[in-house]
Amino acid sequence: MKLWNKGISLNEKIEKFTVGNDYILDKKLLKYDCLASIAHAKILVDSKILSPNEFQILEKYFKKIMSEGLEITLNDEDCHTAIENYLVKNCGDLGKKIHSLRSRNDQILVALRLYEKEELNQIKKLIFDLIEELIEIILKNSNKTLPGYTHMQKAMPMSIELWLGSFVNALEDDVDLLKFILNLIDQNPLGSAAGFGVPIFKLDSKITTKELGFSKNIKNSLYCQLSRPKFEIQILNTLSNTMFTLNKLSSDLMLFSTKEFGFVKLPEEFCTGSSIMPQKKNPDVLELIRAKYAIILGEEFKLKNLTTNLISGYNRDVQLSKEPLINSFEIIKETLEIFSLVLKGIEIVQPNLPQEIFATEEAYKLVQKGVPFRDAYKEIAKSNKYN
Amino acid sequence: MKLWNKGISLNEKIEKFTVGNDYILDKKLLKYDCLASIAHAKILVDSKILSPNEFQILEKYFKKIMSEGLEITLNDEDCHTAIENYLVKNCGDLGKKIHSLRSRNDQILVALRLYEKEELNQIKKLIFDLIEELIEIILKNSNKTLPGYTHMQKAMPMSIELWLGSFVNALEDDVDLLKFILNLIDQNPLGSAAGFGVPIFKLDSKITTKELGFSKNIKNSLYCQLSRPKFEIQILNTLSNTMFTLNKLSSDLMLFSTKEFGFVKLPEEFCTGSSIMPQKKNPDVLELIRAKYAIILGEEFKLKNLTTNLISGYNRDVQLSKEPLINSFEIIKETLEIFSLVLKGIEIVQPNLPQEIFATEEAYKLVQKGVPFRDAYKEIAKSNKYN
Amino acid sequence: MKLWNKGISLNEKIEKFTVGNDYILDKKLLKYDCLASIAHAKILVDSKILSPNEFQILEKYFKKIMSEGLEITLNDEDCHTAIENYLVKNCGDLGKKIHSLRSRNDQILVALRLYEKEELNQIKKLIFDLIEELIEIILKNSNKTLPGYTHMQKAMPMSIELWLGSFVNALEDDVDLLKFILNLIDQNPLGSAAGFGVPIFKLDSKITTKELGFSKNIKNSLYCQLSRPKFEIQILNTLSNTMFTLNKLSSDLMLFSTKEFGFVKLPEEFCTGSSIMPQKKNPDVLELIRAKYAIILGEEFKLKNLTTNLISGYNRDVQLSKEPLINSFEIIKETLEIFSLVLKGIEIVQPNLPQEIFATEEAYKLVQKGVPFRDAYKEIAKSNKYN
Amino acid sequence: MKLWNKGISLNEKIEKFTVGNDYILDKKLLKYDCLASIAHAKILVDSKILSPNEFQILEKYFKKIMSEGLEITLNDEDCHTAIENYLVKNCGDLGKKIHSLRSRNDQILVALRLYEKEELNQIKKLIFDLIEELIEIILKNSNKTLPGYTHMQKAMPMSIELWLGSFVNALEDDVDLLKFILNLIDQNPLGSAAGFGVPIFKLDSKITTKELGFSKNIKNSLYCQLSRPKFEIQILNTLSNTMFTLNKLSSDLMLFSTKEFGFVKLPEEFCTGSSIMPQKKNPDVLELIRAKYAIILGEEFKLKNLTTNLISGYNRDVQLSKEPLINSFEIIKETLEIFSLVLKGIEIVQPNLPQEIFATEEAYKLVQKGVPFRDAYKEIAKSNKYN
Repeated sequence: MKLWNKGISLNEKIEKFTVGNDYILDKKLLKYDCLASIAHAKILVDSKILSPNEFQILEKYFKKIMSEGLEITLNDEDCHTAIENYLVKNCGDLGKKIHSLRSRNDQILVALRLYEKEELNQIKKLIFDLIEELIEIILKNSNKTLPGYTHMQKAMPMSIELWLGSFVNALEDDVDLLKFILNLIDQNPLGSAAGFGVPIFKLDSKITTKELGFSKNIKNSLYCQLSRPKFEIQILNTLSNTMFTLNKLSSDLMLFSTKEFGFVKLPEEFCTGSSIMPQKKNPDVLELIRAKYAIILGEEFKLKNLTTNLISGYNRDVQLSKEPLINSFEIIKETLEIFSLVLKGIEIVQPNLPQEIFATEEAYKLVQKGVPFRDAYKEIAKSNKYN
Repeated sequence: MKLWNKGISLNEKIEKFTVGNDYILDKKLLKYDCLASIAHAKILVDSKILSPNEFQILEKYFKKIMSEGLEITLNDEDCHTAIENYLVKNCGDLGKKIHSLRSRNDQILVALRLYEKEELNQIKKLIFDLIEELIEIILKNSNKTLPGYTHMQKAMPMSIELWLGSFVNALEDDVDLLKFILNLIDQNPLGSAAGFGVPIFKLDSKITTKELGFSKNIKNSLYCQLSRPKFEIQILNTLSNTMFTLNKLSSDLMLFSTKEFGFVKLPEEFCTGSSIMPQKKNPDVLELIRAKYAIILGEEFKLKNLTTNLISGYNRDVQLSKEPLINSFEIIKETLEIFSLVLKGIEIVQPNLPQEIFATEEAYKLVQKGVPFRDAYKEIAKSNKYN
Repeated sequence: MKLWNKGISLNEKIEKFTVGNDYILDKKLLKYDCLASIAHAKILVDSKILSPNEFQILEKYFKKIMSEGLEITLNDEDCHTAIENYLVKNCGDLGKKIHSLRSRNDQILVALRLYEKEELNQIKKLIFDLIEELIEIILKNSNKTLPGYTHMQKAMPMSIELWLGSFVNALEDDVDLLKFILNLIDQNPLGSAAGFGVPIFKLDSKITTKELGFSKNIKNSLYCQLSRPKFEIQILNTLSNTMFTLNKLSSDLMLFSTKEFGFVKLPEEFCTGSSIMPQKKNPDVLELIRAKYAIILGEEFKLKNLTTNLISGYNRDVQLSKEPLINSFEIIKETLEIFSLVLKGIEIVQPNLPQEIFATEEAYKLVQKGVPFRDAYKEIAKSNKYN
Repeated sequence: MKLWNKGISLNEKIEKFTVGNDYILDKKLLKYDCLASIAHAKILVDSKILSPNEFQILEKYFKKIMSEGLEITLNDEDCHTAIENYLVKNCGDLGKKIHSLRSRNDQILVALRLYEKEELNQIKKLIFDLIEELIEIILKNSNKTLPGYTHMQKAMPMSIELWLGSFVNALEDDVDLLKFILNLIDQNPLGSAAGFGVPIFKLDSKITTKELGFSKNIKNSLYCQLSRPKFEIQILNTLSNTMFTLNKLSSDLMLFSTKEFGFVKLPEEFCTGSSIMPQKKNPDVLELIRAKYAIILGEEFKLKNLTTNLISGYNRDVQLSKEPLINSFEIIKETLEIFSLVLKGIEIVQPNLPQEIFATEEAYKLVQKGVPFRDAYKEIAKSNKYN
């Protein structure tokens, strides 16, 4: 039974097309939809639509779903309908009452936002884990020095602290951005109904805001709609920002673990082989970490483009943001975990340092003796010992 | 058992990460991997590695897999390994021989290419179906005229033939691009092994080229590798090119089916309702068709960015192109089918035509009487009857 | 004379190619390069490379350039070289000393960052101006109500405060993101030289950090390099985030100013005409505002893709971020100014409100009387008065 | 004087905003606008709007503009208006007649298409030049062998013919795509006016099609509009496709020219230095070639996103495609030229070949002796001589 059923059935193929993968993706949202529904039920008590006793019955069933799960079928269309059908089956007419004073529009908004907050918090922790692994390597290799590179050509000496410390700094800034976004999206959209509020009844949003742990509620109900693509885009940008850091670190590790460079060794149990070349030990794991950046960027671009040139108010187009969003969360969590594991295993090898990376130092020794830098530079450059 | 197993086990978490969704996605490739393996087995007969009798045994098992399917587990890593493990289980040492003179690198290349060719051929047919539906509507509504728009403002009269005929033209050009790409990718990569050919043995690629119905084989084995991202990018561009056309047509239909415009009616069984607003009949199906363009673009962008700045030769990064590719094929096929169904149902309503769209015609009537166009234009513009 | 000249001339065509548009774009950076150079000169005094007297001479010339400007030719390559050549011409050997203890790598970093901070501050002000214009319209039209839309279909009543207030909310959040990014990039990179610091000499970065008004300095010199693409990407994301809001608002205005909708009127002096259709008054200005979103997005994706898969340390590739960055600043400033002007001119027209947008209210009136919402919904839906 | 002037002046700031950079960019189109106008004048003779004598006068002035150029000012708005204003100044009322039976909409369409055809033809030639340089290097270095790489790890031997031949193959396929697109866009849009044809008068498009060398004319006038973004997108995709090839080749050259790899040497006059490090010789030219891929991709995505979700018929948004299109042509032409120059200069150095790249060959020698491949593989793998 659809929440909007009016007696005319939707064409079956069209139905399948409009439902898409929602019935699978919504598994991730089930828990949050229940949490939000319990909070909403308190509004219904406050509005005299539910009695305190009815509230307790509904709350019991929501908690049951949260602990036992609930199958969502293609016919259910989405988690909202699956839950309501379940309630009606178990509590009869009482089950129908839960959908008063709200729309699926604010229902999905609030469930998504709770889900997003929890995911971002988990990712924050995983970034901190990665930072710790980096600091571990820095401490363990404090006596080693590699050549630093500009233009992929040897430049000047680079300590492990300088090299990996730059990624620690980057990840710390990445966490700052993530925290800002977490704070930005921490706005309760429940009560906005289809974007135009609920007529006749006055809802006290402070109830659900407090109940669900939001730091504030959105006063303009239409902004709840507008904030969905805007916030989701910002979440994706935050994820791609962190993936950018991982892309660069894995690119360094890839180059440094070639035999030609030879500064980094991966343990054999992290490497795959070739089906034709017996000698191969390949760092596939680093290539895949590196490559996930492009994947997240593509997901971000989907969201940035999805509602271009559309007008205000809910458009069904935004349904298609769910999959890129959920996939991106899954990808970045797995990638961060794996990268921490990889870092645990890598070994840094002290190479022989070529003379050329000390050329700048030599020039500055001349400067220290009073030679103007431009002249010192030319003297060293012409000594030709680096060719 | 991995094809590259050398006695050291891959870390379990790393393994899961590197396998990713391949074991699910590869279901689409099973059939093509079998077809290519049969063709490759003929090379092995030609190279005296298989006897004609051994060939027949292997062929029988490949055909069995093609008709009965084969489960691919996460442990199998991919369809290639699942098949080989199956063969070894059923034919013992003979099963091991099939992987002679090839690498998984050319094995996946050829399977993907066969799959891509079949998908593109199906899509071509679905575009032709859509063209037919459009022609049907044009014929049925040949007596109707709508206002045509520029800058979203009423411009000049537009017949249904002019309006929908422009999409017929677009789709015909889209098919031409698709056919060109079909022809471009019709190059056999089997025999290129890991990108550097097979040493010692001389393979006669003409055997597999003929067997698999390719129009030519790639002579440079390294180009087989380079051609993978390049061809996949071109396939995605072809799909996004068609989706662009569908995006525009669905945007027209969305606007024209508002009550304010009112030129187009969707049957009720194609519309969904609202969970809060009783009066609503929403054209979700058109919004979702429209929105799939952004999704395909995002997939295309993933592939266009995936191997940026990487060097020649196989990089594991390209594994991640499989999911965007397969998803995009599935999306466009479903969207084309649904759009044909939607077009079958829409009704075009003849509106009252406002005088202003005939302003240009009036000006040209004056031109016909000898008035210079600039003067005719000003005379009509100043008559002010369109305000 | 190049700063890195060693006696062998660069091939002329290669030189032209590598310089690109830098000699034009760097005009924007001249002022900031001078400011940073004055601060750097204080470091040189602190390091006994410049005498206080020499500092005063150099400072005089930097201020002269800032007030009078300086031509940058293709031969100069960039603003850094143009300035140094000017100093050498005017102060002889003293001019050569300014480049001690720094590299063009940190010189461009600090100039860009000062420039970016000033641009972002200007944009912040322009967003506030736009917010004010919106509030003005809301106040002026507080008695008007439009139909609100979901799925581009009439939904429920929408006051001007609800409609435009949602954009005020969005812009306020946009400013918050902008402020966060302003704070994030407020890190002094001067002193990091080519990413590996300056050997032999100890630089006191606090001097330049204070002098240039940064809130902190970056301690890891290699992070200065890594922070360039990361911060530039975040700036572009901030700009595209604001453009997203403008895209949506202009899309609303475009639809609402069609004659079919008719809620919004643009003054004639804001509209362009057609060269063939005498009756036309086109809202080109809104179309161009709307379209700038795609342009900024393209610039953002250039930066997000530019350094994919590259290793740490300076790569010349980042030079190509300058043009997208500068262009995007120019585009968004102009667009915000124009949009404020447009808003000053628009008129909102109170339409006759169709009965259907009150359907939800009617249903809730029944709920108030004790009818369960699902039943009230069905009763109103079946009354069929909205067809 | 605007072509659509009706007595009310456009607000000055709005005017500047709507004109944008058109008055600069249109310099590229001036020649093609004149060529198309001469062809259009033949239509006007055919339609009795111009006498043969008047035609000759106008033709003389068009040719004058083509040989002498014409300044386009911001006040002119675009090249079309600049030309018409020039004609009116020089031929009085006759000058006004040229704009009969057309709109600026088809005027810009036809000028752009002629321009695009010429640019694509030039690019085709430059790709052939690059192919020739590659063949030159292959022939000169036919006796050299490098290690080939997979996963950035040494794999198997790679001849120069195999390595650079793969790029020859790629560029040949790139040219095929370019030729297909050249053929696809070779459709005359002149006569479509604002997308709805010219009323009253019957235009014989075959006249302009023949005159301008198009292979066919578009029969559906609205498809002329739709074809603009579609064709421009395909052009950009063609350019990015070629840039992809250049990105990969320059990435190879970058890695191979590190001292660690050392297979490729750039002449000193192609390298730049560092302002701080005396020993540096940097391959900036290769980095910039490589980086242009991301720039072209960004331009392509501007166009792919620009008209998302917009309805049929001219929208001013498409004006913003001009700059990405023209820039992209300029960038790719310069990059191809420079790359040919770079290839002329590079030297390939024969390295000592490590034993490990012959491991596959060794395994196949065992296969030749009758050992099954899987066993041969394991034997070689376990010999451990590659660690």
